[in-house]
Formats: sequence, C-alpha cells, structure tokens
Amino acid sequence: MSRKISESSIRRLSIYLRILEEERRAGTTTVSSEDLAERAGTTAAQVRKDLSHFGSFGKRGLGYAVDELEGELRDIMGLGDRWRVALIGAGRIGSALLEYTGFAERGFDIVAVLDNDPGRVGEAWGQVTIRDARCIEDVVRREAVEVAIVAVPAAAAQEVVDRVVRAGVRGILNFAPVQLRVPEGVALKHVNLVMELEALSFALSQDNGHS
Amino acid sequence: MSRKISESSIRRLSIYLRILEEERRAGTTTVSSEDLAERAGTTAAQVRKDLSHFGSFGKRGLGYAVDELEGELRDIMGLGDRWRVALIGAGRIGSALLEYTGFAERGFDIVAVLDNDPGRVGEAWGQVTIRDARCIEDVVRREAVEVAIVAVPAAAAQEVVDRVVRAGVRGILNFAPVQLRVPEGVALKHVNLVMELEALSFALSQDNGHS
Repeated sequence: MSRKISESSIRRLSIYLRILEEERRAGTTTVSSEDLAERAGTTAAQVRKDLSHFGSFGKRGLGYAVDELEGELRDIMGLGDRWRVALIGAGRIGSALLEYTGFAERGFDIVAVLDNDPGRVGEAWGQVTIRDARCIEDVVRREAVEVAIVAVPAAAAQEVVDRVVRAGVRGILNFAPVQLRVPEGVALKHVNLVMELEALSFALSQDNGHS
Repeated sequence: MSRKISESSIRRLSIYLRILEEERRAGTTTVSSEDLAERAGTTAAQVRKDLSHFGSFGKRGLGYAVDELEGELRDIMGLGDRWRVALIGAGRIGSALLEYTGFAERGFDIVAVLDNDPGRVGEAWGQVTIRDARCIEDVVRREAVEVAIVAVPAAAAQEVVDRVVRAGVRGILNFAPVQLRVPEGVALKHVNLVMELEALSFALSQDNGHS
C-alpha cells in the first residue's frame, strides 16, 4: 500500500473512525455513506472515494457494517500496531502529555522521558524516570525508540529532531511552534496551536467586519 | 470581505506569515512567490492565488516587500485586533495554556479562568482568579468575553460550548477530543492531538509495510 493518500483524506478517515466508534457505542449496526458524510461535514461521494483507496467496503444499498468498517479503518491507520515513544521535554506540555491516556490507546507507548534540566534528571515520572537529554541518541538506540514527541522550546526543536532522526527515529510529533525539517521517510506531524489561533482570529475578524 | 476562503488557504497564509517573520528577522527585504512557495511546500501559482483573494500585492518581476506583505497578512488575519478570552478548565492543559505567551502575542487576552472544582475556585492564577464554572454565563456577559478556550473533559465539552455560545461567545478554541456543534456565525477551531496521532500512525504503518 504505497500509494500517496492526501492529508485531508487521512484526516477524514480519523473523523469517520470517531463517528463509527460513537455509532457502535450507541448500538447502531449499519451506516450509509450519506450518514457518514452528513456527520463528517462532507459528501457521500467523498466518503466513498476516501474508502475506495483501501478496497471495497459496504454493500450497495445496504451501507457499511459499523463494526467491520471500524475494524478496517483501525487496520488502515495502523492503530493495531504498537510504537516505542520517547517524550522529549518534561515541562508543562510534556507533563500534560505524559498523563494523556490517548497515546497508549492508539498504540504509542512512552518508554522514555528526557529533559535538559539537570535538577530533574532522575525524577520518577509515572512508569519512567526522567533521563538526561544529552543522552538522546543513547536512549533512542537502547530503548529501540521509533517515535519522538518533541515538547521543547522552539529554538531547541530542530536540534532535537536532527539528533533523534540520526539515532533512528522514524516519526515525530511536534508541539514546538516552529517549522521543522526531516529527511524523506521520516513522518512529521504538528500539534500547532499558533495556526489554530490565527485561523480563529481570521474567522472572528471576517465575521465582524473588523478588518 | 465576506467571501468564503478555504481552510487550507488560511493555513497557508499562517505559514507564509511565519516565513515572512523569519525572513524579516534575517534581514531579507523582498521575497518572490517562488521563494514563498518553496519554503511553504506549495507552488508559486498557489501563493499568488492565495494572496489574490485579498487584493493585489507585489510587483511583477520584483516580488513582495517582506515587511509590507507581513503587515498585510497580519491585517488580513485580524492579528491587530484584540479579543477577550475565557479559559474554561483549569486542569493540566488549561494550566499549560495560561502560561503560553502566544495568546497575547496574537491578540487573545485571557480575562477569566473557570473550573468546576470547588476546591480550586478562588485560587489566584497569574493575573486572574479561578471562578466557578457554574457561573459561566454570568462571567461571559460581565467580562464581555468573545472567545472561549475549552479545556474540559470530552464529556463536558458540548455543554460548556452551548452555554458560552448562548451567553454571546463568537469563537471557540477546543482542546477536548470530541466533535462539537456550534450555530452558524460561531467560529470553531480544534487543537486535536488524536487526529495528529492517527495521521502519524497511518504514516508509520504505510512506510513500514506494517499493515
């Protein structure tokens, strides 16, 4: 499955998955592409197109079996796989992330936490102990880390990324408000508060006739 | 300016703005649409199209003056306006957000913090005091709050949104991992860790031939 799927298509798969989880919990057994489209804010044709990348689902006129399609989507998105994760940066964001149960639920197991504050190294944090950020490469290799969560200040983020990538990490989840460069073959995702804020500011000022 | 601009176009404006800020700091005075396109990962035609929604910028063959275009983009995005914000939820995420200086830098002033834990109400938090979430409507009205940051558990988020919207809020920045409904005319933006995680999982498993 090496075809290139668009980012927006992957985002819609996430939304479909969220809807299917809710429908299953509500006891629904089948949904139509029209139902999915309406709840996801798209068209039925788009739903069918998004799913068609991955094979043929559903029966014409009968819709999709909720539990089957949910399972297929989880497989497609790799949510049955498990990934060894290092959390880099034990400040407020890092601290909030370590408590977040959604990582493990989606297959991301935090096996190491690192920080560059000597006063915090050695501190026990849940199941793990904070390790010295100077040893990033060593920790990544010994712990067979595949994914790094970057929760360091913007100015330090690129160096951290370069180091973990050299040590073998293949996926980065970046919380620093900065654009980062990674070599081809390394997946990079951002949780970018600044962009959301700017989009909100744009919407508010348009609405308002402010600008 | 009531035309509908696509979400992806607004996101690219944010990226152009980030690039222009960096170029200005680096002392660059003009950039071409080709420069912007290359750094933003798009095409020069797309850059010109995104900017053309808002009038005519730059001189053919000379490119854009960095400081002028930066100013225009900041105006377009409403980043010169100021918005009165209530932060709802004083847990770990709320706590990290209150320390985040990027809100004020983009015109979002946190004028109230609310929580539903009676033990925390009255606690001083930076410039503000935590107030009782039962009084959301009253606080929104008296403080003339225009934007709500929702940092409450998923199950509580829709009710919080319904209440602040009824009290007059016109913009929501949602951190709860849930889809929310707002009436037309209310801007809703998400910072959605789950979707980024799922997109990362997808990329890793594709890469890998895992799935």
